[in-house]
Amino acid sequence: MGTVTAGEVLSGYLHARAGDFLRGLRLYGESGADTAAADEAARTLRGAARRIGGALHTYRPLLDPVAADQLRTELGWLSGTLAQEHACTARLHRLLGALARLSGAVPVPGSRTDSPVPGSRTGSGTAGRGPGPAAAHPGSGGVGTLTPGTLTVGASRAGALLERQLTLARTRAHSSTLQALGSSRFHAVADAVAVLASEAPLTGPADAPAGEILPGPGAVTEARLLDAVAVLPLGRASRPYNAEALVSGLATASDGECQDAPWHQVRRLLRLHRYAQEVWCPEGSPDPALYAAGQALDRHRDAAEAAAAAANAARTPRIAPTTAYALGVLHADQRHEVEAARFAFQQLWQKATSAR
Amino acid sequence: MGTVTAGEVLSGYLHARAGDFLRGLRLYGESGADTAAADEAARTLRGAARRIGGALHTYRPLLDPVAADQLRTELGWLSGTLAQEHACTARLHRLLGALARLSGAVPVPGSRTDSPVPGSRTGSGTAGRGPGPAAAHPGSGGVGTLTPGTLTVGASRAGALLERQLTLARTRAHSSTLQALGSSRFHAVADAVAVLASEAPLTGPADAPAGEILPGPGAVTEARLLDAVAVLPLGRASRPYNAEALVSGLATASDGECQDAPWHQVRRLLRLHRYAQEVWCPEGSPDPALYAAGQALDRHRDAAEAAAAAANAARTPRIAPTTAYALGVLHADQRHEVEAARFAFQQLWQKATSAR
Repeated sequence: MGTVTAGEVLSGYLHARAGDFLRGLRLYGESGADTAAADEAARTLRGAARRIGGALHTYRPLLDPVAADQLRTELGWLSGTLAQEHACTARLHRLLGALARLSGAVPVPGSRTDSPVPGSRTGSGTAGRGPGPAAAHPGSGGVGTLTPGTLTVGASRAGALLERQLTLARTRAHSSTLQALGSSRFHAVADAVAVLASEAPLTGPADAPAGEILPGPGAVTEARLLDAVAVLPLGRASRPYNAEALVSGLATASDGECQDAPWHQVRRLLRLHRYAQEVWCPEGSPDPALYAAGQALDRHRDAAEAAAAAANAARTPRIAPTTAYALGVLHADQRHEVEAARFAFQQLWQKATSAR
Repeated sequence: MGTVTAGEVLSGYLHARAGDFLRGLRLYGESGADTAAADEAARTLRGAARRIGGALHTYRPLLDPVAADQLRTELGWLSGTLAQEHACTARLHRLLGALARLSGAVPVPGSRTDSPVPGSRTGSGTAGRGPGPAAAHPGSGGVGTLTPGTLTVGASRAGALLERQLTLARTRAHSSTLQALGSSRFHAVADAVAVLASEAPLTGPADAPAGEILPGPGAVTEARLLDAVAVLPLGRASRPYNAEALVSGLATASDGECQDAPWHQVRRLLRLHRYAQEVWCPEGSPDPALYAAGQALDRHRDAAEAAAAAANAARTPRIAPTTAYALGVLHADQRHEVEAARFAFQQLWQKATSAR
């Protein structure tokens, strides 16, 4: 163990993630009309792209910086594009699930909006078809309580409006994904990842022992995370029902986004830190509390975006007042979940840091 | 101390509260156009009426039951009537304060919606005039941030709508108060209280030593309270952000009222228990944590009624969608405060009961 070099550790990690990437790509091509398989394949692709990008970022001092930066940029483009469709589906599920809950409908087991949504990708996998009619989308089983009669008129109309808007957004995202995966830009990324699997662009310092050279870049990433957490209003977040997240619930959209931004930044840095720890972790294995804290920030992001989607839908011209009212309740509910996620993060972060 | 009789203790308490009642009545008559003085006088009257009624209820075994029950019924009618106007004013302040907060307006110091509202009674004290124009009502200083420009269109319109509706309700309540205070029914109550001040309708058991006879009725009241608390979902309330209070936020109004009812019942019984302890407390003095727990349930009731007022306003025909949206956000915000009050009650109750 003492004689393993930093380059061996890093290239071993990049090799494994490049393998995941290429496997995800193959599975996506084979998924055809199987939307669950395509969703799983896209998830694998995204996860691998983000991890490779993260390793290239954190361990850049051991790599050819030009090659690392270029590939990282391209992987960011790809994972961003792939994430859109999944995000639209998850957002729709979250919002329809919340509407069902707000209407007092008994939730279907397993329909929790924060659990992974199976079969969320619709359509046959060809650009021409795209998602089918909203009422028939495969994921609708997750919010199966949304049947006429269990909802009030306002909730039903709000649900229908959101379904139209988010299904349209998902169709566009699906087309973008297919277009991206067929582009020469994507083929160049896939080629670069295939090369990475066999040969990482290592430089001189990578020849040093792993234990000497890898902790440095990891500590830099961790320090950025700690700096970002330090500016969060954790004291306020630790007091339940502090009403912070909704404080600008009726103000302009930019106000709400302002208060969310530092939390989103911590979410990204926490993920980067976690990926860096996957390459090399001084403590042996990453702290599971950090992973849970990251999940809380994922919920924070999802709820914030769902709240924004509800507010956005309320700006649709000529909607009925009952629809607008339901969207207002829904918006506030999701901002409430934003606040709950901050509380959860604060608790988990305290646990993770006090355990040291 | 050991030789004081139950009758002496009880009649001493009733004498003091009857004095408060008559003082409040005199101050109300003298208040004229001074709305702050009239509000304070009404508060004194209400508090005395509730305490006398509470003592007549709990210590009924020591009193002439027919006289006690009759006066208690009449005092309940009076305090209920007097409470309406104050409730309308407080509700309007709570809702306008929440709208200002939701719009990101910086709150004016002292404008917290759960603090007592000075100057909440409007008008000259004569039935003919009633409250002046809404924009000029004396209490508006407490939510002085509600100026055009600090609120979005939806929040402004929702605020104006609520102000119209609740000002109208307050005008009606004010008229009812004046009508009640001028009625022969009220004069009969005032006469009965004046008699109580000099001569409580005690029966035989009241001659026994206080320490022997007074704990029994007090324990009965406490047992009723404990039974009512036992059916509350305190386990759920102890977990912050449990989303319980809004679970039927878009369902029919009766669903929401259903889940609030047991909490309102505990609020009433806790107040009754506190009043009983004012007469005779085995521990020497009532537990301040119980008082704080009662305040949390007052906030629970106020927030629940404010949420209902927002939902009710949203049912006004021909309102703009932006108004309805703001009312939806406001409704959810107040239901969120309902949940926060349950959490606070649970914490305080645990503290009060674990201290024993």
